[in-house]
Amino acid sequence: MLDAVERKIEQFIAELEDKDTLNLYKKLPAGKRLRARLILAIAGDSLSVIKTAAIVEMIHGASLLHDDVIDDANTRRGVASINAIYGNKTAIMLGDILYSKAFYELSNIDPKLSRIISRAVTLLSIGERQDVVLSESFNSNEELYKQMIYNKTAVLIEASAEAAAYLAGKELKPYRVYGKNLGIAFQMVDDILDITQDSTTLGKPALADYKEGKTTLPYIYLYHSLPKDEQKVLRGMHKKELKEKESRWIAQKMQEYKVIQKAQLEAKELVKEAIEIMQNLGEVELESIATKMIERSF
Amino acid sequence: MLDAVERKIEQFIAELEDKDTLNLYKKLPAGKRLRARLILAIAGDSLSVIKTAAIVEMIHGASLLHDDVIDDANTRRGVASINAIYGNKTAIMLGDILYSKAFYELSNIDPKLSRIISRAVTLLSIGERQDVVLSESFNSNEELYKQMIYNKTAVLIEASAEAAAYLAGKELKPYRVYGKNLGIAFQMVDDILDITQDSTTLGKPALADYKEGKTTLPYIYLYHSLPKDEQKVLRGMHKKELKEKESRWIAQKMQEYKVIQKAQLEAKELVKEAIEIMQNLGEVELESIATKMIERSF
Repeated sequence: MLDAVERKIEQFIAELEDKDTLNLYKKLPAGKRLRARLILAIAGDSLSVIKTAAIVEMIHGASLLHDDVIDDANTRRGVASINAIYGNKTAIMLGDILYSKAFYELSNIDPKLSRIISRAVTLLSIGERQDVVLSESFNSNEELYKQMIYNKTAVLIEASAEAAAYLAGKELKPYRVYGKNLGIAFQMVDDILDITQDSTTLGKPALADYKEGKTTLPYIYLYHSLPKDEQKVLRGMHKKELKEKESRWIAQKMQEYKVIQKAQLEAKELVKEAIEIMQNLGEVELESIATKMIERSF
Repeated sequence: MLDAVERKIEQFIAELEDKDTLNLYKKLPAGKRLRARLILAIAGDSLSVIKTAAIVEMIHGASLLHDDVIDDANTRRGVASINAIYGNKTAIMLGDILYSKAFYELSNIDPKLSRIISRAVTLLSIGERQDVVLSESFNSNEELYKQMIYNKTAVLIEASAEAAAYLAGKELKPYRVYGKNLGIAFQMVDDILDITQDSTTLGKPALADYKEGKTTLPYIYLYHSLPKDEQKVLRGMHKKELKEKESRWIAQKMQEYKVIQKAQLEAKELVKEAIEIMQNLGEVELESIATKMIERSF
């Protein structure tokens, strides 16, 4: 069924009658298609569902294209990013084309669906900005951080689940909560992997987030655990190229205060709640998607 | 009534509950609000009309923000552009926020309206890309150029007129043609002004387009008028910092072959047709908007 989604995306882009755009699109790595999988698992494979999955993946792709420009990222999903190969301008323009075609196709399906998805895209773009603003200085505010990852990562997953439930005529709320929990947990796990994995596995250097100014949850927890003088030390390393010794100090302190475990536990709790909701509804495939998410990191 | 549109835009942005975004938005010069004026002139001032005008102006603003990043523009409407002051990233993000909020608000009005506008935004973003691709080398193909300015500039004006006619329960086609003609003529006039006006009036240096690689209509006409050896000379100046002597040569040749007049006449014809359509419908204000457009340049 995921194949049908891929074909639908290619068809949507081919309809633009701009060869250049189609060729560029083909250079984008598809990724895991988590959002499309979710939608299909919730709502089956009618034409509207396939279209919605394609639309959401186009929107996700557009947001990643702009994201990589904003983050000066050179790689995406382990390969060179579009902005790295063709420049920022091409990435911006391709993102705009994918966004607008996705919105156009949405308007051909259903107004309620349009509202669910476009609301999410608005929050997503605000989340991207919050991410940048928070990265400008050392952020130790847990709530601000959580609000930002909800917007930046969780809203589109939440909206995918809600949109799919709507298309399937299912009750919206449990699916919305499921999507939200999964989305937040997904970002938390991503943030943890940046600390625990090395560059070859993830395609980017370890502790890259901190060097870029992103104080993700483990850093925030660590900060609040440290004595005053060591808080200063941690702050002093923020948004800098870290020396081997400094990276080791952060890793040691994180171990000492078990902040990775704390963040992992929090992500786990969110996923557990999501699984329970799906167990109550007898949604076996959605349980399994959530379980796989946990296994990704723990 | 234009005031009501300004307030609606500010309200839409305030609803995002992101102070930072509102402050940034306020730094954008409002411009002439041609699209909003058109919509109000066609459809009156009901709430849906005010909202639609606000949405279209937000979309136009978003496209200019991304445009200025793509064109490396330092000024917009005579003042420093957002990308020049706050950097490309801020301009990209603010553009994404305006686009997505606009689409969300569209989905709250009417699906047909959503389709009209989002189709236009798709073509607009393709037009932006075509503009960049055409600028990479010397383009002497008139049809390609006209297709590009239709997408880049005319589609959103065309869609504004069509959307307004739809809201007002008027026949769509004459308004669509009016908007299309006005939009193409508007861009042609803009291209001519780049050649005929000096930097103080327009806020950008004369012949800026050619230096950036844009062979607008007068250049295309000149190219096809020149003898082979002089075609070579013209090509040789393409996408380069022009010396005083070279600029003068271009201006002289353009005068000799009356290519400015030819382009002006073409724009005039389009506007004349637009005026005639509105005369037949007794739309006095729309006639006057079109007339003012002509007076802008001739």
